Amino acid sequence: MRIVVLAGGIGGARFLRGLQRASPDADITVIGNTGDDIHLFGLKVCPDLDTVMYTLGGGINEEQGWGRTDETFHLKEELAAYGVGPEWFGLGDRDFATHIVRTQMLSAGYPLSAVTEALCDRWKPGVRLIPMSDDRVETHVAVTLPDSGERKVIHFQEYWVRLRASVPAEAVVPVGAEQAKPAPGVLEAIAEADVILFPPSNPVVSIGTILAVPGIREAIADAGVPVVGLSPIVGDAPVRGMADKVLAAVGVESTAAAVAEHYGSGLLDGWLVDTVDASTVERVEAAGIRCRAVPLMMSDLDAAARMAHEALTLAEEVRGA
Amino acid sequence: MRIVVLAGGIGGARFLRGLQRASPDADITVIGNTGDDIHLFGLKVCPDLDTVMYTLGGGINEEQGWGRTDETFHLKEELAAYGVGPEWFGLGDRDFATHIVRTQMLSAGYPLSAVTEALCDRWKPGVRLIPMSDDRVETHVAVTLPDSGERKVIHFQEYWVRLRASVPAEAVVPVGAEQAKPAPGVLEAIAEADVILFPPSNPVVSIGTILAVPGIREAIADAGVPVVGLSPIVGDAPVRGMADKVLAAVGVESTAAAVAEHYGSGLLDGWLVDTVDASTVERVEAAGIRCRAVPLMMSDLDAAARMAHEALTLAEEVRGA
Repeated sequence: MRIVVLAGGIGGARFLRGLQRASPDADITVIGNTGDDIHLFGLKVCPDLDTVMYTLGGGINEEQGWGRTDETFHLKEELAAYGVGPEWFGLGDRDFATHIVRTQMLSAGYPLSAVTEALCDRWKPGVRLIPMSDDRVETHVAVTLPDSGERKVIHFQEYWVRLRASVPAEAVVPVGAEQAKPAPGVLEAIAEADVILFPPSNPVVSIGTILAVPGIREAIADAGVPVVGLSPIVGDAPVRGMADKVLAAVGVESTAAAVAEHYGSGLLDGWLVDTVDASTVERVEAAGIRCRAVPLMMSDLDAAARMAHEALTLAEEVRGA
Repeated sequence: MRIVVLAGGIGGARFLRGLQRASPDADITVIGNTGDDIHLFGLKVCPDLDTVMYTLGGGINEEQGWGRTDETFHLKEELAAYGVGPEWFGLGDRDFATHIVRTQMLSAGYPLSAVTEALCDRWKPGVRLIPMSDDRVETHVAVTLPDSGERKVIHFQEYWVRLRASVPAEAVVPVGAEQAKPAPGVLEAIAEADVILFPPSNPVVSIGTILAVPGIREAIADAGVPVVGLSPIVGDAPVRGMADKVLAAVGVESTAAAVAEHYGSGLLDGWLVDTVDASTVERVEAAGIRCRAVPLMMSDLDAAARMAHEALTLAEEVRGA
């Protein structure tokens, strides 16, 4: 079975690990979000791609969900001693190597997709990981700074990591997305998929950004195979992260049903909500999306595998309908 | 008193620390060798400048004489895990920060001299450290590889660090030196100096490279102030490093007297040899260079300070003559 998964960072990566356990023989292609990429210290950093790669490759810091295990932060300390920031972005000594190799390969002319493949040669994540695009896309967020009242457009990472989404996101713009082309292999993987899954990743800044690359949304809608998603919102709050903050920016309420409606029945065939949101199943189905209520707390690998299994089961239901 | 010192790496840096103790009120300008600079992992590394900066700024690994104290090597381990080398060049996690800041500033358009000044803002070495040139100069070495018999031109660092000068250097070429201009401040510092010193640095690949930048040798010869050097060769062997290997390439025998003659009386006014080489004083003086035999083993800071004191004393003798 060929499965295509659109993935952001931590939620996507942990779901993928569950999917690998639930469907060990599946041929999985991951289309990774690159809208949260950022240039730091002259280096190209791709947090979501790396989180997927490290998580599936056994190099992740399990507790925090991002960055490397057994990590030190000496280089960052020294940059701070030189007065070179930002200090709010946590790059460890081991993690830096990934960004140095990536930057060197990009400078030598390789596209990001080829670089990602080369990095994965080491990590062997067991999936084919493709960035959504080789073109630069950077998600920016419009905010009003609380102290000065100044309206400012900042990089998504500054909003997410430095401000911790503490002020409302007034607009979320994937800069460059309109001009971006899907990376080589993206449309082909979608066209050849048997199932397409949206993990419980952020519907705006992760999956939304991938869908903003012209051609990807259309290819998924036209693939003619079940497209099933898992709600990142459980009981009106995001399971992790601060998805509610960016949902408000696109005028979507922070509920499992509203996110399904936001994707829409033109794209989504099936939707899993958590058991605490069972009462919302009817509303989702009324929107033309088949819906089931199952446990969606990804507390460990077993839970993630059960969620993946439920998603595949719903996909088969959709296919049989 | 304004002192100009031409410096390579470890020997130059340790001598400078002695000079600061011997002459605490002196205004010292260091013209640093950049011929051993190398691009590694897309970063600009300036080993000699950094050794001077770290040594005088209190950040050096005292035992090995290069690199940072309290260092870890996680980034390098990870680069090796990606199959990205060279592995023979020891860049530590803390040291990497210097190269990242430097590379970022160079990419932003700052010349190396401005970058070096910015890095020294942190380290406060107590001297003004200027690279010999803002232009790229890279010392290359012609060798015959012992296994294959292949004649090859390699970067000086590859000769020195990877091969440990284990094969004869057939030629030493400071590539780019002929087209290089002295960095801003170099010629001015020389013109305003009261004394010019050559520490016991490598006469070919350190001081020789600095002198190969058009204008520097001439400025020193024309400065009209005492120019005094200290022999890096003691009892026919280099005190440290492998200076003899590269002296052979330029047809100079590995003796204190031969090195003095190599600089020549047109450049050098005074020369210190070690007491074990006292018998050679006459030969050096016959070449028109005032010479004294004093202990030249730079075993600790006191010894370095005594050597610096002897050099300054000889300079005053030259001036009075």
